[in-house]
Amino acid sequence: MSNKPILGISMGDPFGNGPEITVKALAGLREATAPRSDTADLPNAALPAGVRESGSLADKSVYDRCRPLVVGDVSCMEYAAKVAKKVSGIDVKIRPIKSVNDAKFEFGTIDVYDMGLIKPSDIPGDPEHPAPFKLGATKLGGEAAYQYVVKVIHMALNKEVDATITNALSKEAINMAGHHYSGHTEIYADETKTSKYGMMLAHGDLRVVHVSTHVSLREACDRVKKDRVLDCIRLANNACRALGIREPKIGVAGLNPHCGEDGMFGWEDIEEIQPAIDQALGEGINIPEKKPTPPDTVFSKALGGWYDIVVVMYHDQGHIPLKLKGFVYNKAEKRWDAVAGINVTLGLPIIRASVDHGTGFGHAGDGGANALSLLNAMDYGIRLAENRR
Amino acid sequence: MSNKPILGISMGDPFGNGPEITVKALAGLREATAPRSDTADLPNAALPAGVRESGSLADKSVYDRCRPLVVGDVSCMEYAAKVAKKVSGIDVKIRPIKSVNDAKFEFGTIDVYDMGLIKPSDIPGDPEHPAPFKLGATKLGGEAAYQYVVKVIHMALNKEVDATITNALSKEAINMAGHHYSGHTEIYADETKTSKYGMMLAHGDLRVVHVSTHVSLREACDRVKKDRVLDCIRLANNACRALGIREPKIGVAGLNPHCGEDGMFGWEDIEEIQPAIDQALGEGINIPEKKPTPPDTVFSKALGGWYDIVVVMYHDQGHIPLKLKGFVYNKAEKRWDAVAGINVTLGLPIIRASVDHGTGFGHAGDGGANALSLLNAMDYGIRLAENRR
Repeated sequence: MSNKPILGISMGDPFGNGPEITVKALAGLREATAPRSDTADLPNAALPAGVRESGSLADKSVYDRCRPLVVGDVSCMEYAAKVAKKVSGIDVKIRPIKSVNDAKFEFGTIDVYDMGLIKPSDIPGDPEHPAPFKLGATKLGGEAAYQYVVKVIHMALNKEVDATITNALSKEAINMAGHHYSGHTEIYADETKTSKYGMMLAHGDLRVVHVSTHVSLREACDRVKKDRVLDCIRLANNACRALGIREPKIGVAGLNPHCGEDGMFGWEDIEEIQPAIDQALGEGINIPEKKPTPPDTVFSKALGGWYDIVVVMYHDQGHIPLKLKGFVYNKAEKRWDAVAGINVTLGLPIIRASVDHGTGFGHAGDGGANALSLLNAMDYGIRLAENRR
Repeated sequence: MSNKPILGISMGDPFGNGPEITVKALAGLREATAPRSDTADLPNAALPAGVRESGSLADKSVYDRCRPLVVGDVSCMEYAAKVAKKVSGIDVKIRPIKSVNDAKFEFGTIDVYDMGLIKPSDIPGDPEHPAPFKLGATKLGGEAAYQYVVKVIHMALNKEVDATITNALSKEAINMAGHHYSGHTEIYADETKTSKYGMMLAHGDLRVVHVSTHVSLREACDRVKKDRVLDCIRLANNACRALGIREPKIGVAGLNPHCGEDGMFGWEDIEEIQPAIDQALGEGINIPEKKPTPPDTVFSKALGGWYDIVVVMYHDQGHIPLKLKGFVYNKAEKRWDAVAGINVTLGLPIIRASVDHGTGFGHAGDGGANALSLLNAMDYGIRLAENRR
């Protein structure tokens, strides 16, 4: 019996970029183009043509480290495989399975747990002439994406898979289908009955955990409370241990500029963040500075090796540095090298790592999306699964 | 007569890193160490020894582009020159002047407009055995630093110098001396009677203008008002033109995550920022996207060449990406390559460019500080002066 972790990969919105990047990732294709993410909102003109033709980077190493299966629809995966053959010159087969036990996990053939929600005729295109679907958010796509995620969560709860990896879904689409969630994280929390959780973003060794995410900046200030900050410090510490880091070093960003400069502008750093740090230190958590770090230097220090992870106080405090590192523009060659960041939901009883870009509805279907973020998410899922044993 | 711009360089706090980095900059010494800035708060242990011994990078090119003079104290500059000879092996002379007309602007001899505020006996150290002064903020240092700045401002107002360049002063020290300002910018505003001004930070081609800086994050939200945002867009546009960019492209960051996602979390993007953008577009200012850009992607786009400058809504929105780019850690060689960012005050009748680090009181005096930020500030001052003609 193999000891490699089994990854359950949700296919994401069937009319987004999930099927095509999943085919590429499992074919080992690391393309140097950007995933065309609607979230990223990059003007199309700046994206390069050409590099996608190369299939030379394909390798089977991904199967040396894990046993991957896809939870989605065979119809979409077969379509995406045909497009990938046409556009990227890679040749993989799609193999429907009805149970994890049926999976063979062989490079060259992708095992797909077939949910049977999308008919071939639902896919608006011809794989011989790849072009963007441009369907946008649909009730059909939202319902399917939601069902894939719920299925893969329950596979993990039942220990049929060792880790779950998610492709992008559309918040708008799942809401059209009547599932009123703001994203994956809340679905995972509900299905696994988890109340204390957090989001970690990662790009290489730069990792952040957010005290809050999708709330206004004013509300984010209100949410900087000792208990929540303490929970996030603990989540961050546990996340590093789960990645195999024995003695994690935690950085805690302040909320206000210069951490409020002794209360001159803003009091949260003193009254909410410091007490959380003090309690965490009392629990034996290693916060080298023993106080909040000015938000504008904490990431340079993290890159310099001072911390393994940084607790951030609001969405953009963490997203700005991560995207600046993860969104790599190659000025010499005038192209985007990669959108490489990933995210991990912390505090769950199961493992979840995810791509950190959107569905790319504007381009999905044309075979041009990049699998790097998915490959990186798989890497994190593998590391987390290996350390959990 | 030379046509090169005359730069008036304020020496900064006499017991900070100003004198030593000024000596190094005017000797053309580009060291690969970090300036030891208290603001940056870097643990000393991580800073490398060794590279500072090399004087091989010294060159006279700085005098090919400008005519620099220092406004400060000859006592401090002579002390710093002796330390630089001892530590870095560079040999420059200090020449006291009592009028700009006396300056010779010759490489190898630094012209110093001598304010006579610091006696040699005020300097607590022996240049033969360089060590940190560790005086911290003092009334004497604060008074002197304040007087240097006021003098250099009036030299610029009187057109005796073409641009002013500032070294770091200590807010605490100037306040101890009875000058109640939060920093250089407010002194410049007062002395030049300017009411609409803004701060631009720059690292290479990444430039940002701040709607607010040293206020709490809650107050920063309150300050996102149409009129102020519009002023900053105009300041940003004018700053690029002043740098010789003919048709500046302006990015405007949103306030809330994802610009509030159509009002779901936060309304300022719709109600305050968008109207400012609309009016600026009506004035012919080029804002390619015609709307605010999500804060977490605007900087990646700026680096990719979409904008020449980005208007940011609060201190850390601009400082996080700038410091992440400007604070360069070389992981391969395990050392900080440079702290290279600079800042420019916009909207003044005179030119001001500045180092973007602190006084480094903890290390100042030991000869280890890095002149790169000052050299970059001089570069911006020169460009601004050349384009003003």
